[in-house]
Amino acid sequence: MRIIDIIEKKRDKKELSKQEIEFFINAYTKGEIQDYQAAALIMAIYLNGMTEQETTNLALAMAYSGEVLDLSKLNKTIVDKHSTGGVGDKVSLILLPLVSSLGIPIAKMSGRGLGFTGGTIDKLEAIPGYKTNITINNFIKNVENIGISMISQTLNLAPADKKIYALRDSISCVESIPLIASSIMSKKIASGAQKIVLDVTVGKGAFMDNIKKAKILSNEMIKIGNLANRQTICILTNMDEPLGYAIGNTLEVIEAINFLKGKMPKDLKEVVLELGAYMIKLAGKGNDLEKNKKKLLEAIENQKAYNKFIELVKNQGGDITYIENPNKFTKSKFIEKIYSKKNGYISSIDAKKVGNLSMFLGAGRNKKEDRINPNVGIVLNKKVGDKVNKDDLLAIIYLDEKEKCEESKKRLEEIIQISEEQVPVPKTILDVIE
Amino acid sequence: MRIIDIIEKKRDKKELSKQEIEFFINAYTKGEIQDYQAAALIMAIYLNGMTEQETTNLALAMAYSGEVLDLSKLNKTIVDKHSTGGVGDKVSLILLPLVSSLGIPIAKMSGRGLGFTGGTIDKLEAIPGYKTNITINNFIKNVENIGISMISQTLNLAPADKKIYALRDSISCVESIPLIASSIMSKKIASGAQKIVLDVTVGKGAFMDNIKKAKILSNEMIKIGNLANRQTICILTNMDEPLGYAIGNTLEVIEAINFLKGKMPKDLKEVVLELGAYMIKLAGKGNDLEKNKKKLLEAIENQKAYNKFIELVKNQGGDITYIENPNKFTKSKFIEKIYSKKNGYISSIDAKKVGNLSMFLGAGRNKKEDRINPNVGIVLNKKVGDKVNKDDLLAIIYLDEKEKCEESKKRLEEIIQISEEQVPVPKTILDVIE
Repeated sequence: MRIIDIIEKKRDKKELSKQEIEFFINAYTKGEIQDYQAAALIMAIYLNGMTEQETTNLALAMAYSGEVLDLSKLNKTIVDKHSTGGVGDKVSLILLPLVSSLGIPIAKMSGRGLGFTGGTIDKLEAIPGYKTNITINNFIKNVENIGISMISQTLNLAPADKKIYALRDSISCVESIPLIASSIMSKKIASGAQKIVLDVTVGKGAFMDNIKKAKILSNEMIKIGNLANRQTICILTNMDEPLGYAIGNTLEVIEAINFLKGKMPKDLKEVVLELGAYMIKLAGKGNDLEKNKKKLLEAIENQKAYNKFIELVKNQGGDITYIENPNKFTKSKFIEKIYSKKNGYISSIDAKKVGNLSMFLGAGRNKKEDRINPNVGIVLNKKVGDKVNKDDLLAIIYLDEKEKCEESKKRLEEIIQISEEQVPVPKTILDVIE
Repeated sequence: MRIIDIIEKKRDKKELSKQEIEFFINAYTKGEIQDYQAAALIMAIYLNGMTEQETTNLALAMAYSGEVLDLSKLNKTIVDKHSTGGVGDKVSLILLPLVSSLGIPIAKMSGRGLGFTGGTIDKLEAIPGYKTNITINNFIKNVENIGISMISQTLNLAPADKKIYALRDSISCVESIPLIASSIMSKKIASGAQKIVLDVTVGKGAFMDNIKKAKILSNEMIKIGNLANRQTICILTNMDEPLGYAIGNTLEVIEAINFLKGKMPKDLKEVVLELGAYMIKLAGKGNDLEKNKKKLLEAIENQKAYNKFIELVKNQGGDITYIENPNKFTKSKFIEKIYSKKNGYISSIDAKKVGNLSMFLGAGRNKKEDRINPNVGIVLNKKVGDKVNKDDLLAIIYLDEKEKCEESKKRLEEIIQISEEQVPVPKTILDVIE
């Protein structure tokens, strides 16, 4: 088999065989295929697409290009949760301790944020002492002992995906449905998930900017999951505006703590309950979604979820006094408040623009090597659909660099748009695809 | 300017600006853009095409990516000739001394063969002593002294084209009209041609397998020529079967010598006269093509052309006793004769298959580094349209490796197809585009 024949085939819009895809992935992982040949093939895939069968074969080949975590020794169904990325997305921080508190084991490996999208690991690391980088043995032991562990991807999981993702990023080939679907599913399969709930974000702050594309992506991922014997459910959620109120690592941890104590922003609550209800269902602990949501709310009310979060943080070396007293978190040096200049209704808070602003403040990273500042970010005071009067507080910007105050304020004032006509509160859960 | 934005633009089928194309070519030549980024862009160009304006800008940027030969000191119009490649194509060996013998200066830089396509330099080097690698000063001096020099590309001509050509070859992006057109024209412009006659080969043994594609390619090249102030004429010639009878370096030199002595195979004669007539016209030495052809035939008859060839070989260090007595050329160790197994008419001699067979014999190279064997090859005894009787000699194979005799014979027997019905002699000159 020769890579140039494989490139030619995809260039001419023909379907690649399982053997051809495996040959490419294995040889590329080993460095036997050059980056420029992989780049040409990736661009041909971007432009000519892939069939569902090809996408599945690509996902599986990437999943098995490195170590594959075996969670079968836990002797329980491991349900994983993954989001395609968003702004203000602290769902994992809340949802996973919550589900774990109902006796469903959680063994979660998360990624760091890149670009305007936040990452769960960055948020967990905002908690002083919390170790995200523990051994697989300890990871599994933690799940056995307290029913939950949340760590970063320490294993050499899906190295082909890592290589191809970095390449896609440098050749403008990120936004491709077969490439996104196979990338996500390869990591999920390699990290040992047996059942998967996917939060497929849709809108201005998401990879998928419209519901049609999100549905195609969801169907591809479900097909891959089924063919790989990993039942997968996709929940399409709105990411036009940031999720919840807080954007920025420490700020989001605090919002998560407050949520677990019962202070639940409406959109965030809907996402957590919807995903949680399906996780319970996939774990075989109840098919009635409404009953499942009730159980979840009970675990918030009776503090079981909050206690599980404390237990998780403690078990991973984190300082729980920060959780018990969020005022302890280091504060940013400066704050800027944004007030409404007129009466009206919030009509738009573009999630991508907010994400980019939070990157500008130092909350995110442009390159993998960039360091992030956990203390900076934005807390909204209003959401789309809210009525506002002139001089109402719209948002607070937390930042550490004085010279950025002016520009940040100006940018956020432009981002938060107000119309005179009433604006309906947007739908949060857009669709569920099983 | 950033290469990823340029890739994205072409990926999305948008037109690149002159500045963007120049940025890419200059930065890629300097090594500031990675091969994998260039590969992604080239694949996007292959799949999404280029406008005529983009193709022209690409050709010019590549032409000026290195040294550009200035032939103005010769104080004469320099007409260049180039072929898009074929099998048995010894036209330059014949045509250029012929045109030079009419007082039109020839300063020709040629390439080596790659794949099943032969190269003029390989043929010249089959003449013992002939130096293809002389300095530019000597090259120009030779043109001044005897009116002709034929050498290999010694200067750093169009280095961007060299890099991109090598890349295209390794990522299955060779057969792209804008990339072929800009590659050819960049080299012609860089090598100092003021007027250009292009032999655009069409058929089984050519880049362009049909006349429609050849016309598109021709129009692109003419546009580039005009915009670069290099008048360009394209002559579309048939390359379904090999040109003339001989394929292989020494064998083709001998056929060229015989041609210059008046033994002219019909198809080869038509190509030489047509290209020659246009070269004379472009040189400003006569607009009447029929008269030009007559002049060319006269130069054959009165041996002026043959003498010019002797002068050229001598002047470049070649041993003219080989030209005067072609029997001196080293002979291959073995010969295999192919005879007709039935009565009928030759219906097909696939030029590409013959080219590949001659590569198998050692006459061509797969990789740039491969050494070639000048003594091996094929001499046909019949051409498409010829009537043959059972046991007539169809072709002779010249080879040096005994173990290849059987397979070569079998392959050539399959290549030379015979039908019972009469087959018309194919047209040689398919079109002329000015």
